[in-house]
Amino acid sequence: MSAITQKELLTTIYEEIDKDFDEIVGWRRYLHEHPELSFEEYETAKFIAEKLEGFGLEVKKGIGGNGLIGVLKGDQAGQTIALRADFDALPIADLKEVTYKSQKDGVMHACGHDGHTASLLGTAKTLSHYREHLHGNIIFVFQHAEEKPPGGAKFMIAEDVLKDVDYVFGADLDSGSPVGKVSVGDGFKMAAVDKFTIKIQGLGGHGAKPQQSIDSIIVGSEIVGALQKIVSRRLNPFDAAVVTVGVFHAGSAFNIIADSAIIEGTVRTMTEDVRSKVKEEIYSIVKGVTESAHATCEIDYLHGYPALYNHPTETELVKELFEAEFGTESVIDFDPSMGGEDFAYFLNEKPGTYFKAGSRNDDERTHFAHHHPKFDFDERALLTIEKSFVKIVSHYLFK
Amino acid sequence: MSAITQKELLTTIYEEIDKDFDEIVGWRRYLHEHPELSFEEYETAKFIAEKLEGFGLEVKKGIGGNGLIGVLKGDQAGQTIALRADFDALPIADLKEVTYKSQKDGVMHACGHDGHTASLLGTAKTLSHYREHLHGNIIFVFQHAEEKPPGGAKFMIAEDVLKDVDYVFGADLDSGSPVGKVSVGDGFKMAAVDKFTIKIQGLGGHGAKPQQSIDSIIVGSEIVGALQKIVSRRLNPFDAAVVTVGVFHAGSAFNIIADSAIIEGTVRTMTEDVRSKVKEEIYSIVKGVTESAHATCEIDYLHGYPALYNHPTETELVKELFEAEFGTESVIDFDPSMGGEDFAYFLNEKPGTYFKAGSRNDDERTHFAHHHPKFDFDERALLTIEKSFVKIVSHYLFK
Amino acid sequence: MSAITQKELLTTIYEEIDKDFDEIVGWRRYLHEHPELSFEEYETAKFIAEKLEGFGLEVKKGIGGNGLIGVLKGDQAGQTIALRADFDALPIADLKEVTYKSQKDGVMHACGHDGHTASLLGTAKTLSHYREHLHGNIIFVFQHAEEKPPGGAKFMIAEDVLKDVDYVFGADLDSGSPVGKVSVGDGFKMAAVDKFTIKIQGLGGHGAKPQQSIDSIIVGSEIVGALQKIVSRRLNPFDAAVVTVGVFHAGSAFNIIADSAIIEGTVRTMTEDVRSKVKEEIYSIVKGVTESAHATCEIDYLHGYPALYNHPTETELVKELFEAEFGTESVIDFDPSMGGEDFAYFLNEKPGTYFKAGSRNDDERTHFAHHHPKFDFDERALLTIEKSFVKIVSHYLFK
Amino acid sequence: MSAITQKELLTTIYEEIDKDFDEIVGWRRYLHEHPELSFEEYETAKFIAEKLEGFGLEVKKGIGGNGLIGVLKGDQAGQTIALRADFDALPIADLKEVTYKSQKDGVMHACGHDGHTASLLGTAKTLSHYREHLHGNIIFVFQHAEEKPPGGAKFMIAEDVLKDVDYVFGADLDSGSPVGKVSVGDGFKMAAVDKFTIKIQGLGGHGAKPQQSIDSIIVGSEIVGALQKIVSRRLNPFDAAVVTVGVFHAGSAFNIIADSAIIEGTVRTMTEDVRSKVKEEIYSIVKGVTESAHATCEIDYLHGYPALYNHPTETELVKELFEAEFGTESVIDFDPSMGGEDFAYFLNEKPGTYFKAGSRNDDERTHFAHHHPKFDFDERALLTIEKSFVKIVSHYLFK
Repeated sequence: MSAITQKELLTTIYEEIDKDFDEIVGWRRYLHEHPELSFEEYETAKFIAEKLEGFGLEVKKGIGGNGLIGVLKGDQAGQTIALRADFDALPIADLKEVTYKSQKDGVMHACGHDGHTASLLGTAKTLSHYREHLHGNIIFVFQHAEEKPPGGAKFMIAEDVLKDVDYVFGADLDSGSPVGKVSVGDGFKMAAVDKFTIKIQGLGGHGAKPQQSIDSIIVGSEIVGALQKIVSRRLNPFDAAVVTVGVFHAGSAFNIIADSAIIEGTVRTMTEDVRSKVKEEIYSIVKGVTESAHATCEIDYLHGYPALYNHPTETELVKELFEAEFGTESVIDFDPSMGGEDFAYFLNEKPGTYFKAGSRNDDERTHFAHHHPKFDFDERALLTIEKSFVKIVSHYLFK
Repeated sequence: MSAITQKELLTTIYEEIDKDFDEIVGWRRYLHEHPELSFEEYETAKFIAEKLEGFGLEVKKGIGGNGLIGVLKGDQAGQTIALRADFDALPIADLKEVTYKSQKDGVMHACGHDGHTASLLGTAKTLSHYREHLHGNIIFVFQHAEEKPPGGAKFMIAEDVLKDVDYVFGADLDSGSPVGKVSVGDGFKMAAVDKFTIKIQGLGGHGAKPQQSIDSIIVGSEIVGALQKIVSRRLNPFDAAVVTVGVFHAGSAFNIIADSAIIEGTVRTMTEDVRSKVKEEIYSIVKGVTESAHATCEIDYLHGYPALYNHPTETELVKELFEAEFGTESVIDFDPSMGGEDFAYFLNEKPGTYFKAGSRNDDERTHFAHHHPKFDFDERALLTIEKSFVKIVSHYLFK
Repeated sequence: MSAITQKELLTTIYEEIDKDFDEIVGWRRYLHEHPELSFEEYETAKFIAEKLEGFGLEVKKGIGGNGLIGVLKGDQAGQTIALRADFDALPIADLKEVTYKSQKDGVMHACGHDGHTASLLGTAKTLSHYREHLHGNIIFVFQHAEEKPPGGAKFMIAEDVLKDVDYVFGADLDSGSPVGKVSVGDGFKMAAVDKFTIKIQGLGGHGAKPQQSIDSIIVGSEIVGALQKIVSRRLNPFDAAVVTVGVFHAGSAFNIIADSAIIEGTVRTMTEDVRSKVKEEIYSIVKGVTESAHATCEIDYLHGYPALYNHPTETELVKELFEAEFGTESVIDFDPSMGGEDFAYFLNEKPGTYFKAGSRNDDERTHFAHHHPKFDFDERALLTIEKSFVKIVSHYLFK
Repeated sequence: MSAITQKELLTTIYEEIDKDFDEIVGWRRYLHEHPELSFEEYETAKFIAEKLEGFGLEVKKGIGGNGLIGVLKGDQAGQTIALRADFDALPIADLKEVTYKSQKDGVMHACGHDGHTASLLGTAKTLSHYREHLHGNIIFVFQHAEEKPPGGAKFMIAEDVLKDVDYVFGADLDSGSPVGKVSVGDGFKMAAVDKFTIKIQGLGGHGAKPQQSIDSIIVGSEIVGALQKIVSRRLNPFDAAVVTVGVFHAGSAFNIIADSAIIEGTVRTMTEDVRSKVKEEIYSIVKGVTESAHATCEIDYLHGYPALYNHPTETELVKELFEAEFGTESVIDFDPSMGGEDFAYFLNEKPGTYFKAGSRNDDERTHFAHHHPKFDFDERALLTIEKSFVKIVSHYLFK
């Protein structure tokens, strides 16, 4: 197929995407009304499976949990591209006033996974009509449980979902940038997300007799203070990192010295070196401070998602593809974030990139941050994701 | 009546007390089986009232709550002496294995108020037989709610329970000293007990974006640290004081910056000057530290029981009376304590003293600290209290 | 000799003391003009020796340094009483405008040792006229180097200065109480005074590269904060104690991370148990905190003067003697102080007491605290000391 | 002039540079033996002036202090390029064992300014032979006092040294990369360098009486701890910043509470926003913490060099020029640094870039960090700088 024909082909596909817009929006809104928590997305997985089967794809369900894939085999041989969307919702009460408001109390698609899923389904539907043009295969990966570590990605990968895949791509809605823009960038873009729990064991006692106790609140407070020095003193200032203590719970009565204290927090880092360094320092600080006060401690350190690394070659390629298709002004820098994303596991296995599609417009209802109980987006962003995926596919599989 | 006769009279009374021992123990054990929480001592108050009425005393009930008094008028005119016992129990589950174990789940006489009440009832019963020897009156004060600030004492005083009283005396069982010993001492002997609650208001946010938040756990930890400097730096080293933070609660998730933190604690001091100073310093520290971090705070400072002050003249007198009656070796120093006791309110109104009757023997079951779920005592200590009260009465009212 | 005669004798002696007042003041002022630093009191020792020899006493010089004694042997056998004065001055510039101002730049009798010495010399002179009344001996102990640990006392004691002594007494001027008053009290009255030096060894480096350094200022600051918790949390609130950091020195340039920090401070305690506890806690805290930060440390802990303990029997006796002689209203409580005094070593060897003679009057020039560059006193306080010593002597040695 | 001819011309010039190598090294070593401290570089300025005059350049001396320029006017009209070198030395004792060791005690060229100056002189000498090829002018800027804020740059700029300049370029030796490599990169590459001095005024007193004092060491330690939270909590984790306390001095004796404390430190930031934010937070923290302790404070905040910003267009151009001339493998990324450089002032005025020439080889003597007392470099790096400058000049002024 000549380059001219490829362009014509893309035009045809894009017209079909535009034509199906209302249907895709319908799917998205249906999902929005029926959100399911991470690891409990049974109905959502069924919905996706039915659609994929309806498009004539080969569907494999129950991969590493509620995960599933639809395989679109091209008529010609070639490389295999994986496109991924996530589909779990959050334990947040929907405070929007819209017709498609969540029908499940305290559960909400507040991070746009409904949109990710609808747009990847739309991509699958459309591309399923063009098998004869495909030199290779597309695996549409629908991943469960992105919001809740340990996440669904690692379990799907453990079941060889990426076995024959050459490249992997993922997309995210982004309420921080305008609809029509795509954010692309290489290197570490999202943080490794770890969780630590520190249990300080002191010795309780009467509030009037500190000398007979080991005051766990004192020890905990010293630890909170000392942990600040990891970022301020022990890391290279150019290495972005966060150590946040989010929970401090100790004591049951104002006049009793608390015998134990629980401190929970998160560590965000962009490289494995920094990640290891921060962990080491937490252990060192907690050990030293508790010993100084005759207390003891237990630390439970959970490694969550790794830092998300966009591969330079594929990222540069995607950038050029998007600039050529959508115009240079539509492609903006992917600002790094200390947030986490378990698509990182896919990128640790295969080359590829993760990009973001702007989803805000002038309406303030599209300005809420992700995870806000009023989060919503300009649904035209679904078109951006579909067309972006198609453009990537066209590069690898259209000849 | 000559001194000789007085001695004989005392001997007679003491014999009667000894004879009634089993009955008093029975009352104590009945109360122990039927404990009631502070401000909820309805049945206990009824029990006491019935006994007092049975002794032929004039009873006034419902004084400042569940408090009540029995008035024993002597046949001759003279001074009025108040003797006080408290009768509420604690929200502690009784873990002893005894026949008289608490029958109420999670409620227990773990501070000996059952003993205080039984021994004061015993004193009332016995003395009620000697009206003709009394030159003056005795008010038997049964006070509710000693364990729970604001306490019952101030409410009883507010209803003029001490109106015609010349002197006031109270006694406590003491598992720290052997049965048979009485602890006597003048000056400030128990602490003023205040409660503070500090609410720090920061600004919550994503754990990965500290720059958009005001971290209330950081502020709280700094406050805990800074509060230590009140005792270490801002008070005279000879002024005993305690500032204990007993509660630190902040945060609901490891990866969310806590928007607010609650710190609760107690202040123990022995003089009003030090009490005021500590309070001032708490306000100064909390204000400065929260402002330094752009947070805000609310402080709720509750003045609890004042420091208990044993009046020197009456204390010296009581000491001499006890030494004469029980032997010098039986009267020991009253070591000051940072614990609180709302009998302090009575001593702020009228001269008198508060003493302690040793209640431990060689059996480890009598060695548990007050408020321990296995607290118990050698019941012969009830005799000590009764005889001590009678000795005091004899000085003022027997002629 | 009958009691009546004793009284007459005392009256006679007191008249002689009053008569000699100007001479004693002259000696005091001479000493004030010629102060000498601790361990360098060569001329002062000579001055004292000449006086003592002039009184006809047996003088032993160079005891444990510049210390010396004058021995007054009574004509009759009996007990031996030691009376002690100290005679070193301080490295303080005299800022008073008086005729007897210090003639030595930067050196001053700012703690009244000139007065102590002059009054003990006066006592010696007077009593030297009454040998025939003495049933026993008096050792007038003139001690050097009280102001500078390790102090002169322990060296004098090491040379057996207390070998044959039965009781030992010392007196201090006190600008905190009015002239004519004497402060007497038993038990621990002045603190054990220890010194600690903590050297924190970090790793220096460029101020812009904290990650390559171990910041000793951070570690030092954490230690200062943690040390506060010894007094606030780890001691009985009734045990008076002070942990003061007086020196914190680290760093040579604003933009270089300090490789080491020096922290110096003092510990004041009233009992050996508390003293040991505080020392242990310092070691524990410094070890834990430095290890938490990968730094190392050295601690140099010097035990200075022990707590000064006034023996109850002798103190009670002295109190009664003073009350009888000077009137009850002239004898006031000796408030304990966290200051130190190496007379403590004498009292660790022999029974006795240390008392204070009020030295302030309405003139503000007598109100400055000890060690103030304008410290001065009402010289009539010298009479108080002389007469107090004589009164004590009269009890033990006049018969 | 055709491109071919330009290449030939460059080849000719480079040959001349190579030929003069020994002379340039001689100048460098002469300067190394005769270092002068910032703002005292009188002889160095004379040396440079004589050389420049010897090359036939128009020399202007005493610009903003010891600064000077040599102006090389091309025979044809065109743009004006400024090339800058700095020439002051450091207060560091030279510990190397080399023939050209510093002859001045405690003063040393430990940052390579001798090399910067020698290579710029070499560049000037060589280019002075090619006036007929120059379409425009070159201003050789020799700047004094780079090492000591406020630095020489701003004073030279204040005297209009950049008035007619179109572009400005500077170069640095870099012991961190191999000789032959040049580091190039756009954006903020070196930090804004500020200095703060915090004077905490407490209230001194006797170490045994904390209650009568305001302990400035306590306040200082709290401030050091609280300052850590600026970087850890109040900045975007992607904004590199350093807050270092380099000096903490308080107290004169272990047993006296320090009445004041001095804290000095440096702030390093890469943008003006972050710089302002950090400064604000320092003020807020110091105010809050001192007020919480009843102390007062003064803050002296000196804005030092701004962050150094390499202009993207000129940097990209320079990168391409260097890659074309020296090979792609010779041009490496300019890693950002929290160090400061007052060339930033020049780049705030005119477009241009600052690059680094690698100066280490396999010999460990070339591996010491800048400012190390044994700092030295592979002198072939001088050739790199000369050729780099000539390459830049050739682009703008050779036609």
